[in-house]
Amino acid sequence: MTPDEDETERGGGPAPFGRQVYVARLRRAADQVAAARLTGLLVAPGPDLIRLCGYRPRTAPDRLTLLVLTPEGEPRLLVPARDRAVAASAPAAGAVRVSTWEDDQDPYAAAAGLLLPHGHYGISDTTWSVHLLGLEEALPLTTYRPLSTALPLFRAVKDEDETARLTAAAVAADAVYEAVLAVRFSGRRESELAADLAGLLRAHGHDRVDRARVASGPHGADPGHRSGERRIEPGDTVVLDFGGRRDGYASALTRTVHVGPPPDQVRRVHEIVRTAQEAALAAMRPGVPCAEADRAARAVLADAGHGEHALPATGHGLGVTPYEPPYLAPGGTQLLAPGMCVQAAAGILLPGRLGVRLGDAVTCTADGVRWLGGAHRELAVVA
Amino acid sequence: MTPDEDETERGGGPAPFGRQVYVARLRRAADQVAAARLTGLLVAPGPDLIRLCGYRPRTAPDRLTLLVLTPEGEPRLLVPARDRAVAASAPAAGAVRVSTWEDDQDPYAAAAGLLLPHGHYGISDTTWSVHLLGLEEALPLTTYRPLSTALPLFRAVKDEDETARLTAAAVAADAVYEAVLAVRFSGRRESELAADLAGLLRAHGHDRVDRARVASGPHGADPGHRSGERRIEPGDTVVLDFGGRRDGYASALTRTVHVGPPPDQVRRVHEIVRTAQEAALAAMRPGVPCAEADRAARAVLADAGHGEHALPATGHGLGVTPYEPPYLAPGGTQLLAPGMCVQAAAGILLPGRLGVRLGDAVTCTADGVRWLGGAHRELAVVA
Repeated sequence: MTPDEDETERGGGPAPFGRQVYVARLRRAADQVAAARLTGLLVAPGPDLIRLCGYRPRTAPDRLTLLVLTPEGEPRLLVPARDRAVAASAPAAGAVRVSTWEDDQDPYAAAAGLLLPHGHYGISDTTWSVHLLGLEEALPLTTYRPLSTALPLFRAVKDEDETARLTAAAVAADAVYEAVLAVRFSGRRESELAADLAGLLRAHGHDRVDRARVASGPHGADPGHRSGERRIEPGDTVVLDFGGRRDGYASALTRTVHVGPPPDQVRRVHEIVRTAQEAALAAMRPGVPCAEADRAARAVLADAGHGEHALPATGHGLGVTPYEPPYLAPGGTQLLAPGMCVQAAAGILLPGRLGVRLGDAVTCTADGVRWLGGAHRELAVVA
Repeated sequence: MTPDEDETERGGGPAPFGRQVYVARLRRAADQVAAARLTGLLVAPGPDLIRLCGYRPRTAPDRLTLLVLTPEGEPRLLVPARDRAVAASAPAAGAVRVSTWEDDQDPYAAAAGLLLPHGHYGISDTTWSVHLLGLEEALPLTTYRPLSTALPLFRAVKDEDETARLTAAAVAADAVYEAVLAVRFSGRRESELAADLAGLLRAHGHDRVDRARVASGPHGADPGHRSGERRIEPGDTVVLDFGGRRDGYASALTRTVHVGPPPDQVRRVHEIVRTAQEAALAAMRPGVPCAEADRAARAVLADAGHGEHALPATGHGLGVTPYEPPYLAPGGTQLLAPGMCVQAAAGILLPGRLGVRLGDAVTCTADGVRWLGGAHRELAVVA
């Protein structure tokens, strides 16, 4: 099994797409490979393989599984012999040709048989080094580039089926937020609220919970804070940062609430954060570098005297994982393109005092962005 | 965040060991590096880094975090600048020197500054390829070997503190098994029983559930079966295969039960499986190749006419992950050594009919093995 997999949720994983969806994705990826003048693309188990084939090997990732995709040839999927039947019944079956390596065989020699000795391949970023080193030894003259640099649009741009699932996940996260507003905050621990959030995510169709963070009072100023044992008190500002996977696609919603009527100062900070997030969204359109959206949010914060209190980044992609390209961050040269789905966020972190953050899933359209969910963005008051 | 991390359980992760434990582990690893004539060891986030430093970065793994360990020098931990404070307060703090790379800096250039240009390094198997390719580009003459091949004993041999935690996890899994025997099986779905197992694992101190598999009737013959919607009936044989992490260390217990009084044929198959598992354990002692334990179990099955019905492997290591070296499998040349902790299993898979499996956590001692848990190994009858 995969060491990091918690398979208690809906054993089999998310529902696959139809076969024709994978055929189209494989075709589009092959075209990207040709356009990038690569010999091919090598994809190990993980998010890239799930997207291209709907395939999630059962055996542990120390045993080589590798998709080899070239511009012209039939896609090849190399798997351990014991996985042949499972691989052959993957959602993309029929569109890929499965070959196997036996327990007593060198898997890298088997992979080498599918590669050109002088080829130049893209390889999925998350491929374990033990496998790359095995390939490098088997084919000393072959060269490799990380998939994220070689084909920056590969994961970042979603097709319509993916955007539909991301939208459904965002709508479910909205419902979680609505529901948690009715929950009692005052007198309860962050960890208890976090358990409520996790339960609500599951109740609203999430197969897994990635994040259920509750950061109250001064904890709100630490963007990495994980729900702890602090008891929430009247007068606290509380950051709720949560999401999970629904049908295999990620939700991510960040909201800030106040326990009891908020003082004017908190209202003002919240208003600045909302304006900063809107500025980031207004800056987003095809052809604009990611850094530009980040800069737009930062400018609003700086104008309001909170330049030093900004979040480290303004956003990141959402897809089969809750954190992936593109990254809306300083220095982000990637140009926005239609179909990119991101969580766009803004925040003011006041160390020792409080934090206020807002984050929403949006998709980049032909001329701007469209919100995937619709949770209200006021400073909500909780009990 | 790490894409595969479910942080709903006890937010902060397992309790760390004391600082001196990490100092000793770093020292031992440095000695292994020297003995293997490597320039050093490079460890990316994941199980190896958790073991050596108790450090689990908060930022996503696409941002380089790297421990550089050499035989003589002070261990160096390179982290993104925004992680400095968290890294400096890691359990191994004081025993490692933290350095950072800034957002606008090339992380591989920063790493190169800590490496010898002509060095020969071991690198943790799970390091993402995007990082290895970055290092290879920054230092074209440096060479790398996978940690598992370069230092095969590094993860496989546990220290006393680790064996104590693995023992506590095994004892907790025993209690889960005792408790599940009192649960109603007949008329309920596999997925419901799996939820019971997951709940019991948590109730018995597990921070996370890795596996809660229930394979009833003919499903028992598929070693990769995940709990599904089949209703368990009287007369079913049911394989329970479960485990998780307790205080950061893995439990793994496999048992087979029967709904109502078992027929003689099932009793006989169970008896053969038990004998095969005992044969594997009897073969285990320091200096014996892993394949030998596997062969011993297979020989018993073959003698009983079930040579074709064996599990693909007889066992695997347990530690900070539920699946790691050493592997008790055909072709396993690794020699057993004191301190190795494995789940040793045997099974008979009768396709279309049923499966019977047994698996227990043991540790390799100076002259054999010691059981970490003590769950009884009879064919239990459930209602």
